[in-house]
Amino acid sequence: MIGHISGVKVGQTFPNRRALHDANIHRGLMNGIAPQGASIVLSGGYIDDEDEGDVIIYTGEGGRDPNSGRQISDQSFTGGNYNLAHNASLGNPIRVTRGHQLHSPFAPPTQGYRYDGLYRIDEYWSEKGRDGFIVWRFRLIRLEGQPPIGKLESTVPIPSGSVQPPRSTATVSRVIRNTQIGNIAKELYDYKCQVCGNRLETPSGAYAESCHIKPLGKPHNGPDTLDNVLCLCPNCHVLFDMHALSIQNDLFIPETGNKLTLRSNHKINLDYIDYHRKLSRRN
Amino acid sequence: MIGHISGVKVGQTFPNRRALHDANIHRGLMNGIAPQGASIVLSGGYIDDEDEGDVIIYTGEGGRDPNSGRQISDQSFTGGNYNLAHNASLGNPIRVTRGHQLHSPFAPPTQGYRYDGLYRIDEYWSEKGRDGFIVWRFRLIRLEGQPPIGKLESTVPIPSGSVQPPRSTATVSRVIRNTQIGNIAKELYDYKCQVCGNRLETPSGAYAESCHIKPLGKPHNGPDTLDNVLCLCPNCHVLFDMHALSIQNDLFIPETGNKLTLRSNHKINLDYIDYHRKLSRRN
Repeated sequence: MIGHISGVKVGQTFPNRRALHDANIHRGLMNGIAPQGASIVLSGGYIDDEDEGDVIIYTGEGGRDPNSGRQISDQSFTGGNYNLAHNASLGNPIRVTRGHQLHSPFAPPTQGYRYDGLYRIDEYWSEKGRDGFIVWRFRLIRLEGQPPIGKLESTVPIPSGSVQPPRSTATVSRVIRNTQIGNIAKELYDYKCQVCGNRLETPSGAYAESCHIKPLGKPHNGPDTLDNVLCLCPNCHVLFDMHALSIQNDLFIPETGNKLTLRSNHKINLDYIDYHRKLSRRN
Repeated sequence: MIGHISGVKVGQTFPNRRALHDANIHRGLMNGIAPQGASIVLSGGYIDDEDEGDVIIYTGEGGRDPNSGRQISDQSFTGGNYNLAHNASLGNPIRVTRGHQLHSPFAPPTQGYRYDGLYRIDEYWSEKGRDGFIVWRFRLIRLEGQPPIGKLESTVPIPSGSVQPPRSTATVSRVIRNTQIGNIAKELYDYKCQVCGNRLETPSGAYAESCHIKPLGKPHNGPDTLDNVLCLCPNCHVLFDMHALSIQNDLFIPETGNKLTLRSNHKINLDYIDYHRKLSRRN
């Protein structure tokens, strides 16, 4: 079951994992990631987790010593980790519950588990965690139109898939917001994709997307500079962001068999290309 | 000049249009849409405008009787209307200023004009306005990370295009948020695009986007039901949303020369197809 659970309010608390399971918010009594990856529980088990309330960097499952909570081996792209990533590519929202054991200002103040509503997976990647092993990480962003964290919603949420869809299920605009630098890159290539050469024509002019090689925003903090930006069509942008395309240092793209188109006045920083390749490394 | 103007704070007020012009917030003394469509002023001139603060439905320019403020002829997809649409396809933010004459709870309380920061154009379309003539309409959504409307920002905003980009310039995730119904449509077509047949493969599974024919959200209020949903690749989704693709009642698509793929168990409501065609009507 994806999305809100009928009859459960955002902000509602449950005394223990059994009650959370019985309410269908999070099935299972020990797992951080529920079956099919529809829900996660944050309860302080992973030292790499970061909780800023509306934004969470969540560490995937596996490779952890249950006693110390430390990583003792690499996590793999299977099970709950794969399921979360799959929901990311489906654009599915994830239910988030916080436990009182969580080391975060957003932990419930008293014993129990609080359902904090729906988040979307903005991004996921693998990296070396604090203990030196590969972990999978998921950046979750809380959907709009929900009560503030810790405040009980007064009305029962409408289940999604309805004739009058609630605001939080609205799809986002297909047009990707851009930076000035992004527009320079698009002009440089006359809106032709640097990967496939495609150029989308619309009544209001050509359309392309600028794509940051090392992503903007935490935890990557890539720069918004021309040496970190590509001009891509929406399809190749998705493939690049979801690591179905990788670029070698000689600009060859193994998945297409072609080289990235590059203008002589467009210098790309190979460190960012390298960073992107490391993000997409599969174990 | 796109984006914030160096030295001008969000929430800053100007005594008149001349001062607004001199500060480079909005060039010109009478026009609602500034040159190149980088900025708009809301001052109550158009009866079709709607102002909900963070969301604005803005009416384009032209066809208006300057004395009565009523539409007396159709607006065309030229000049400021075209420039705003072009900025929408570029993903450029638009500066928004509110005048005291505006009939809205968000109008400045006293004489003058208040710069309310950056909005993105979520969508645009043409429709019959309240006076019975074609008007162009633009749905603007305020960018996050700005002070509340009417509250003066205490620090001068950082100009965009920097090594440490401010949060409001960050690009949105490439993955489109979905509804349950959207996922059903994607499964039905095994993630193949109904327009071009393309199927994107990624390490976390196939990727497609669900696209509402009659858009969700105000003012269209399309339903989130299977008869209003298509399974498209990102490229065709952009082309459809930006009215570079239209679907006839027999499902023929003039721009591609092919018919829309449709499974026998997927009924599409032709009223929604008709609505989308009317949205994209060019005069």
